[in-house]
Amino acid sequence: MNITSIIEKKKDKKNLSEDEIIYAVNAYVMGLISDAQMSALLMAICINGMNLEETYFLTKAMIESGNVIDLSNIPGIKVDKHSTGGVGDKTTLIVAPIVCSCGVSVAKLSGRGLGHTGGTIDKLESIKGFKSDLSEEEFIKQVKEIGIVDAQQTKQIVPADKKIYALRDVTGTTRSVPLIASSIMSKKIAAGADKIVLDVKTGSGALITDFEESVELAKTMVFLGKKFNKETIALITDMNEPLGNSIGNALEVKEAIKTLEGNGEERLTELCLTIASYMISLGKQISFEEAKKQAQEAYTSKKALEKFKEFIKYQGGNIEDIKTSKNFYDIHSNYDGYIRDIDETVLAMECLKMGSGRINKEDKINYGVGIVIKKHIGNYVSKGDILATIYYDDKKPDNKNIINSFMLSEKKEKGFPLIYTVIK
Amino acid sequence: MNITSIIEKKKDKKNLSEDEIIYAVNAYVMGLISDAQMSALLMAICINGMNLEETYFLTKAMIESGNVIDLSNIPGIKVDKHSTGGVGDKTTLIVAPIVCSCGVSVAKLSGRGLGHTGGTIDKLESIKGFKSDLSEEEFIKQVKEIGIVDAQQTKQIVPADKKIYALRDVTGTTRSVPLIASSIMSKKIAAGADKIVLDVKTGSGALITDFEESVELAKTMVFLGKKFNKETIALITDMNEPLGNSIGNALEVKEAIKTLEGNGEERLTELCLTIASYMISLGKQISFEEAKKQAQEAYTSKKALEKFKEFIKYQGGNIEDIKTSKNFYDIHSNYDGYIRDIDETVLAMECLKMGSGRINKEDKINYGVGIVIKKHIGNYVSKGDILATIYYDDKKPDNKNIINSFMLSEKKEKGFPLIYTVIK
Repeated sequence: MNITSIIEKKKDKKNLSEDEIIYAVNAYVMGLISDAQMSALLMAICINGMNLEETYFLTKAMIESGNVIDLSNIPGIKVDKHSTGGVGDKTTLIVAPIVCSCGVSVAKLSGRGLGHTGGTIDKLESIKGFKSDLSEEEFIKQVKEIGIVDAQQTKQIVPADKKIYALRDVTGTTRSVPLIASSIMSKKIAAGADKIVLDVKTGSGALITDFEESVELAKTMVFLGKKFNKETIALITDMNEPLGNSIGNALEVKEAIKTLEGNGEERLTELCLTIASYMISLGKQISFEEAKKQAQEAYTSKKALEKFKEFIKYQGGNIEDIKTSKNFYDIHSNYDGYIRDIDETVLAMECLKMGSGRINKEDKINYGVGIVIKKHIGNYVSKGDILATIYYDDKKPDNKNIINSFMLSEKKEKGFPLIYTVIK
Repeated sequence: MNITSIIEKKKDKKNLSEDEIIYAVNAYVMGLISDAQMSALLMAICINGMNLEETYFLTKAMIESGNVIDLSNIPGIKVDKHSTGGVGDKTTLIVAPIVCSCGVSVAKLSGRGLGHTGGTIDKLESIKGFKSDLSEEEFIKQVKEIGIVDAQQTKQIVPADKKIYALRDVTGTTRSVPLIASSIMSKKIAAGADKIVLDVKTGSGALITDFEESVELAKTMVFLGKKFNKETIALITDMNEPLGNSIGNALEVKEAIKTLEGNGEERLTELCLTIASYMISLGKQISFEEAKKQAQEAYTSKKALEKFKEFIKYQGGNIEDIKTSKNFYDIHSNYDGYIRDIDETVLAMECLKMGSGRINKEDKINYGVGIVIKKHIGNYVSKGDILATIYYDDKKPDNKNIINSFMLSEKKEKGFPLIYTVIK
C-alpha cells in the first residue's frame, strides 16, 4: 500500500477502497505517513468528496483506531445527542436532564474543542468543582445510579479523529461533509449509545452555511448511524442568530439553569424540548407526540431542573458557585427599528477575543467572559435601548463590531424558522 | 494574512491575489507555515488549478525567494534549455556542445532530482573526476573561456522550489500544470539566460501523459517566459518509448558520446539537432532553417564532439573513465513480430530497482547499472533476437517485466511522431 498513490487516486476523483482507507487512517495514527501527506489527502477529499460507502469505511476505520464503550450492562435504550455547533448552543445542558428525568439514561462523552467558546465539557467546568475526567467504571456507575453522566472523551476513544481533527483545523480542511460526518459519527458510535439524535445547524453561524449541504451532512450521518445499527434522527435547525441569549461558558450554564427553571428564551426552550422529545421517543419507543408530553411535564414540574442539580452535584460541581466576570457594561442602540438580523459570527469572534474559547489547543479559557444579548430578530428597539451586556476581564471587545452586528430595518421581518426539517 | 483562509479560498475555487501567493511562498520558506498547510494548498491548486496570472505571481514569488544569476557580463545572447523529463533523456549532453560549437554560449544549471535515473548532473558525475559544484565566479569564468558550463544548482537559486518540490514529491501533488510550470520556469529565469527552449514530453512515460495537458503546460511556460522578457519556445515531443537506446547514468553518457561521434540512434539524433537548431536560431537571431544547417555542420564535422570533450575536461572529468557495470546479460525475444509499443515506464522502474536513480533524496545512485534496448517501435524481431542488454550490480531486475514491456504485433504499425508541435 502506497500513500502517494492513494492520495493521487482521490486527487483524480476516483473512489478509495476499504483497504486504502483503513491503511491511510492506521498509518497516520501510527506515524507512518506524515501530516503533510494526510493533509493532502484531506484536501483531496474536501474538494472531490467521498461517496456514502467510502464515508462508511472512513468512519469504521476511525472507530477501530480506538476503544468502543460497552453500555450493554446498563438497562434500557441509551440515547445520545450531538450538535454540529453554533453560537450560544447550550442545548445539551438542558436536554440531557429533561430526557433523563423521563426515564431515558443519558451517558454522554463531550469534547472541549476549538472555537469561540469551549465545548460542553468546558462549559460544565465553569461550575466550581465539576469533575469531567471520569474512569470508565465511574462513568458506568454514575449512569446506573442517577441515569445521567457527561464526561470528557478519553484518549482511547477514536484517537484517529483527535489527530485528524487537529490537522484539519490548521489546514483549511474543516468544511467537508464526509470529514465532518465521519468525525462526529465515529465518536458517537464509539461512545456506545443505542440511538442518536443529531442537531445539524445551518445558516451564517454554522460550520456549514449552505442549506443543501447541511441536508447532505444530516443524510450522511443518518446513513452512517443505520450502517452501525444505531437508529439516528437528524434535525436541521437554524443558526442565523445566537441560540438563546448568552455566549460564554459560565453565562451559558447560568442560562441553562434559568431555562430549566422555566424562564428560558423562547426559541432555545422550544428547540431543547423538541430535541428531548425525539430522544425520549427513541429511548422509550413511543410516539413523538407522547414523548413531547412527557418532556413538557418534566420541564414544567421542574423534575428536569432537579435532575440537573443532582447530576452536577454527583460530578462534584457546586451549582451556587458559577462565576461570571465582575466587570460588565451595556451596549445601547443608536437607532429605532426592528432587528432584521444579528451577525452571531461577529459576536462569537468578540467573545473569543475576550478569552471565551480557544484558538490553539493549549489556550486557557476565561470562563467568566462573554456577551448576553437582550434582543432577538423581530424585536423592536428604541434608540438607547440595551442591545447586549458585555462581561469582560482583561481584554475588552470592539463595541463598534458588536453594535453593528445588530441590523435594523423599519418594518418587522419574518425571521428564520427554528427547525427546518427532520431527517430519519 | 492568514494561511488557513488562503487555503480555503483556493479550496473554494477562487483566485488568489499576488499578496496571498507571496505570503504563502515566503512564510513557507521561513518556516512560518507548516508542511501540512503547504501540502493542503498544493493539493487545492492541483485540483482547482490556477489561472495564468496566479501562475505568474507564484513563479515570481519563487524566483524572489532566492538569487538571480547575472550573466550580463558574458557577451551574446545566452540560451538555456530544459526537458520536462523522460526515460533515456540525455539530450542536454548532446545539444549543449552542438549549440556552443555554433557560437552560442550555454550557461546551464542542472538538477539531481528524484526518479528512475539521476538528473543531468548525476549523469555527468558518472564521468570520473567531473566537478559540478562550481562557485558563481568559476561558472561565469568557464562560460567566458569555453562557452559552455553545466553546474549544480546552488541553494541560493529558488530555495522555495527546493522545499516545495520535496513536499510535492511525497504528497501526490506533482502532476499540476501551474505547479510544474512555476517550478521549471522559476529556475530557468533565476539561472539568468536570455532565451529558453523547452522540451515538453508527452505520452505514457512523461510526467504529464495527456496531450492536451502537455500543450497547456507548454503554453503556460511560454507565457511565463514572455512575462519575464525571456523569449521562450516549447517543443511537444514524444515519450511513448525510451529516447535513444540507453537508460542509466553512465550508459546514457556513453550514448551521448556515440551520438556526437555520428553513430546515434535516429530519433535521438533528430530530436537533439532540432532542439539545438531552435537554440541557435534564438541565440544568433537567425532563421530556424539557417540554424539547422549550422547545427548539422557542427554535428557532422565533429566540432560538437570536440566541444563536449573540452567541456568535460574543463570541469575535471576524464572521458576515458566512464564505468558501466561489469555484469551484463541479454534479454531475448520469445516470439517473432513487429514491435508495436515499448513500456518505457516499466523499463525505467526496473532500472530504478537496480539503483540507477533515487526514491529518496538521500539515496546513492549506482552510476553503472541500466538497460540498453536493441529494438525500437516499428523494428522486426525474430524469436531469439536480443531485445535489450541489462547492466546490473548487486540487484537484478525482473526479466519477465522487461520482456513484457516489448509488445509485438504481426503487422508493422506506424509508431509515434517524434515532435508533435512547437509553441512559440
